[in-house]
Amino acid sequence: MSQLQVGVIGYGYWGPNLVRNFTACPTTHVRAVADRDPKRRAAVKGLYPTIDVVEDPSRILTDPAIDAVAIVTPLSTHFAFAKAALENGKHVLVEKPLAASSKECDELTQLARARGLTLMVDHTFVYTAAVQRIKAYVDAGELGRILYFDAVRINLGLFQPDSNVIWDLSPHDLAILDYVLGFEPRWVAALGACHYKDGVENMAYITVGFDESVVAHLHVNWVSPIKVRRIMIAGSKKMVVYDDTEPSEKIKLYDAGMGVSHLDREGAPSMLVEYRTGDVLAPHLDRTEALSRVTQSFEIACRTGIPPLTDGAAGSRVVRLIEAAQRSLQAQGSKVML
Amino acid sequence: MSQLQVGVIGYGYWGPNLVRNFTACPTTHVRAVADRDPKRRAAVKGLYPTIDVVEDPSRILTDPAIDAVAIVTPLSTHFAFAKAALENGKHVLVEKPLAASSKECDELTQLARARGLTLMVDHTFVYTAAVQRIKAYVDAGELGRILYFDAVRINLGLFQPDSNVIWDLSPHDLAILDYVLGFEPRWVAALGACHYKDGVENMAYITVGFDESVVAHLHVNWVSPIKVRRIMIAGSKKMVVYDDTEPSEKIKLYDAGMGVSHLDREGAPSMLVEYRTGDVLAPHLDRTEALSRVTQSFEIACRTGIPPLTDGAAGSRVVRLIEAAQRSLQAQGSKVML
Amino acid sequence: MSQLQVGVIGYGYWGPNLVRNFTACPTTHVRAVADRDPKRRAAVKGLYPTIDVVEDPSRILTDPAIDAVAIVTPLSTHFAFAKAALENGKHVLVEKPLAASSKECDELTQLARARGLTLMVDHTFVYTAAVQRIKAYVDAGELGRILYFDAVRINLGLFQPDSNVIWDLSPHDLAILDYVLGFEPRWVAALGACHYKDGVENMAYITVGFDESVVAHLHVNWVSPIKVRRIMIAGSKKMVVYDDTEPSEKIKLYDAGMGVSHLDREGAPSMLVEYRTGDVLAPHLDRTEALSRVTQSFEIACRTGIPPLTDGAAGSRVVRLIEAAQRSLQAQGSKVML
Amino acid sequence: MSQLQVGVIGYGYWGPNLVRNFTACPTTHVRAVADRDPKRRAAVKGLYPTIDVVEDPSRILTDPAIDAVAIVTPLSTHFAFAKAALENGKHVLVEKPLAASSKECDELTQLARARGLTLMVDHTFVYTAAVQRIKAYVDAGELGRILYFDAVRINLGLFQPDSNVIWDLSPHDLAILDYVLGFEPRWVAALGACHYKDGVENMAYITVGFDESVVAHLHVNWVSPIKVRRIMIAGSKKMVVYDDTEPSEKIKLYDAGMGVSHLDREGAPSMLVEYRTGDVLAPHLDRTEALSRVTQSFEIACRTGIPPLTDGAAGSRVVRLIEAAQRSLQAQGSKVML
Repeated sequence: MSQLQVGVIGYGYWGPNLVRNFTACPTTHVRAVADRDPKRRAAVKGLYPTIDVVEDPSRILTDPAIDAVAIVTPLSTHFAFAKAALENGKHVLVEKPLAASSKECDELTQLARARGLTLMVDHTFVYTAAVQRIKAYVDAGELGRILYFDAVRINLGLFQPDSNVIWDLSPHDLAILDYVLGFEPRWVAALGACHYKDGVENMAYITVGFDESVVAHLHVNWVSPIKVRRIMIAGSKKMVVYDDTEPSEKIKLYDAGMGVSHLDREGAPSMLVEYRTGDVLAPHLDRTEALSRVTQSFEIACRTGIPPLTDGAAGSRVVRLIEAAQRSLQAQGSKVML
Repeated sequence: MSQLQVGVIGYGYWGPNLVRNFTACPTTHVRAVADRDPKRRAAVKGLYPTIDVVEDPSRILTDPAIDAVAIVTPLSTHFAFAKAALENGKHVLVEKPLAASSKECDELTQLARARGLTLMVDHTFVYTAAVQRIKAYVDAGELGRILYFDAVRINLGLFQPDSNVIWDLSPHDLAILDYVLGFEPRWVAALGACHYKDGVENMAYITVGFDESVVAHLHVNWVSPIKVRRIMIAGSKKMVVYDDTEPSEKIKLYDAGMGVSHLDREGAPSMLVEYRTGDVLAPHLDRTEALSRVTQSFEIACRTGIPPLTDGAAGSRVVRLIEAAQRSLQAQGSKVML
Repeated sequence: MSQLQVGVIGYGYWGPNLVRNFTACPTTHVRAVADRDPKRRAAVKGLYPTIDVVEDPSRILTDPAIDAVAIVTPLSTHFAFAKAALENGKHVLVEKPLAASSKECDELTQLARARGLTLMVDHTFVYTAAVQRIKAYVDAGELGRILYFDAVRINLGLFQPDSNVIWDLSPHDLAILDYVLGFEPRWVAALGACHYKDGVENMAYITVGFDESVVAHLHVNWVSPIKVRRIMIAGSKKMVVYDDTEPSEKIKLYDAGMGVSHLDREGAPSMLVEYRTGDVLAPHLDRTEALSRVTQSFEIACRTGIPPLTDGAAGSRVVRLIEAAQRSLQAQGSKVML
Repeated sequence: MSQLQVGVIGYGYWGPNLVRNFTACPTTHVRAVADRDPKRRAAVKGLYPTIDVVEDPSRILTDPAIDAVAIVTPLSTHFAFAKAALENGKHVLVEKPLAASSKECDELTQLARARGLTLMVDHTFVYTAAVQRIKAYVDAGELGRILYFDAVRINLGLFQPDSNVIWDLSPHDLAILDYVLGFEPRWVAALGACHYKDGVENMAYITVGFDESVVAHLHVNWVSPIKVRRIMIAGSKKMVVYDDTEPSEKIKLYDAGMGVSHLDREGAPSMLVEYRTGDVLAPHLDRTEALSRVTQSFEIACRTGIPPLTDGAAGSRVVRLIEAAQRSLQAQGSKVML
């Protein structure tokens, strides 16, 4: 079997990780990397002397020897590069979020479908052993009826010059939410604050509503003294906490159920909820790097034509939630219906 | 100096703590305790054989030997008991929240003022060494300009039969917010979910807006697998994290500042935020029980006529925020202006 | 059924806990408490007006209405009080350690046996849900072959005026060791340091050797910046960690096994150990206060004549280890054979 | 200024880290790497195509263009390689421990001195920002009089085929002990257990005695369910805890002092120690990789002739402690005088 020939556009913060994993994956081969910055090109050459290094991305987009293009550039350029690649008959993997608007996402998705090409978005967290395990719990009904999803992703971080914290951090949690629960969202509400530059939120609270009182809430923040990366998913039977800062016990499954009875002391109609707490299980998780599953899944999708877990439609759904959050920000936090 | 003669109405969950602290305080004396439940009355008698134990609270409200009444009963009864006590010329300490509506709070406040009596609400956390220290940092300008206040108070807890989680848990954080920052709130937005009983939120997210992009956010939740009691207050110079579940290092002060510069790589107008992280200080905190400071402060206020830190007006401000949160819940999470 | 009539000698640090639990236990009744200090006697009277309070312990030791005596006094007095009580036909519960020498322990044990009376030592930790669970794991073979027992019990604490840290802290861990493993110790070695008073160790390391390479090690320390109370018990199949400072997940069971193979790269005889890490389970533990099980177990033992878990022999075994540790200290840390 | 030309012998577990840091260091240049394993040689070539890769280490030891040799091979080969390199006039950096016996260490030290060459042992932890900061505290007298040093370095780890856990893990802590306290050890005692292979300890407790009741204790263990890497250094004024598993607050300085008074309740001569707990400071630490300071320090030492912090004598002192621990193991844990 021949290897998938990959071209990578962009070798900034995340590009090196993708190149490393494509190189380590036995079924893929990085043929060329493009970056405008000569220092970044030199960095590629130093580590991978056999990879072609180019300044102009169009050399990758038009190279007939290249089967697939990975786009790891600033968000504003995702659409143009992805569109050109698809039009040139190449499979496409795009760094999250897929594009700067759901309209762009949809256009890319349709284009890929029309051409019979793979379009995949790199929602890396979906491929972690932790999220895969949580998904398995949810699908097996271990948690019971889902009650809520609460995500906190806060840190003291470098600001992005051209986007707010919602575009930067929330795609991670929204992609996990979309994948794990798979529910159709009904509305989004968001409130944020701009402490450093007008119009650029450095912190935000996002709420996503679903049917039957299921609610998801995200706290994303670039200006926090402590680093928290924690997702809680509560069900009527069990609850799972995913703490990504834990070195070994990233997931804990709490057998903590509540029973509801409806008597009060006077015998009048009332509600009395009793709680019991049970065992806590921290399942062993495979330590394979999630990104290696991304590159492998991409190759399989390209080869078989079967859409990957995080296809264009998934990318679209995440961007649609971000857009709704943005509209809610502008509408003073009011619910934006989907 | 004679002791303040105190009558306590209600000996349920919190009453025993108040009785114990009033008993330990050298300047106060518990003369009588009222409770409708004979088992609770027997519990008082077992521990404090010299305290008068009565079934009918009016015996306390009308006893001329009693100077002050502590009301530790369900919320719906606060107003009537407090009003009767004030009308009978007695100082009043009320368990949080002060009353079931801000209108009731205001009426009590005016009544107390008119009679020259002390009205105090037991916002216990305000009297902790932790909150006192945070207040000192804020007042001394240690944090710089305040950016945000973020509180998480979640647990797997027994439900209250007659109130939602906002009335139950948020008074703690709202009282701290009110005391520490002292800013005038502009609006409140709240979203919640009722997973066990219609109309009774078991979890809620509350946002409070202030001028100049200062925002406060509370997550209160009765159905959480893990117990979190953490408040973060971020300033432009330093940030403080108050983790009440920590046995010894409850407060940490982070010397984590960010500098903002406005150059981008191309020289175009942009924003580049750099961060640096400094030392972390966990100050030694006095371990005196906060409630002992409550009873002591109450006695001083009764004796001197100087309003306590948590007077009727403070109780009113907290209830006003809760009411606004309730209205926002009913308005689908829209901002409710104050 | 009539209640066991208990007299308590000593109302210092631990006595109040015993009185409270004997009072709460429906099958026991505290008839009298003795303490030389009038303030302590007043403290009893304040909380328990119906209990007889006496200065002279002999009034308890000779009171024909008293069935059992609890001795909660300084170590040097344990033997005399316990002996007198037994000679007067009373069951005896003694605060740990049982007595100041194993010879004293043995004499008390024989005396109790001769008189048909219960002699019990208050090794409280043995009665915790955590230790009971660990014992169940060990007895069921969950851990496989036992490899080692490692205990750290360190804190910044008040010094005992009349004993070193070994007599003060190690009885807890030695009692757990004795109960959980039940192995016969072969030797003891101990090293310590006296930083504040010559001849009074404020920190010590104690090693206890068993057959088949099983080793136990204790670190006890009064002068530590952090509080650690952790016991690890490693087996060939699983390992358990008991962290008593954890509020909820006190025990964790690690399914972490190692396989040994004996090949090296060159094919020469060698050893290659592979490890795998499995799930981690934090079992739900009953939160009943351990001391309530102590008082209940004592009453059952007195009533039935069946020796309690922590009988005189158990008290003797623990003191014998402490004595050996003391001899090793004096012998420069050399192994003292048992 | 010309770069120091470095040859590296051994490209197993640690070699790649040294090569990477020598390559990143502007004043050093890796000219050649030797490894017997063709796969490891290919790994070098893939990452660093310009480095000469050889099978035979003598090609490095005799290459006149090479100024300095880094030896990153199994312990048993350290001496022969280091001796040959020194005899050929090359500076030498050796992976810890310096050699398999103190006699070998001394011979290398003398040889280096005689030839005017640098001999350095890679005690990496000495170069961490954490240890540098602790050393600064100790030297400045912040801790007061040193009381003890307690190190725990335990983990579930792959066994070394040709050494026990003492040779594998304790050099880290002994090197820190030697550097930070700088006291002359008087005796060593050690006890261990071999659960997997006779004569190969997989866990050990080592005690090192100094003058004036200063004691150091190490727990090293390959078979632990949890990973602990913690050093406590207690002084009469302050105490420092170094927890290397903490992502950000690796060092905490406890202002926890104890005062001693000598009165007892009866007025008899006694000891009453009072404790007070003060602030806790977690100082900000530079995040530079310690190994980059190792390579830089090595280059400076080679250039200037000034001995590095971890010179041959330091390597000797550490190996001497290990040898004493080995002898104590064989003498049943008895103290071995130094």
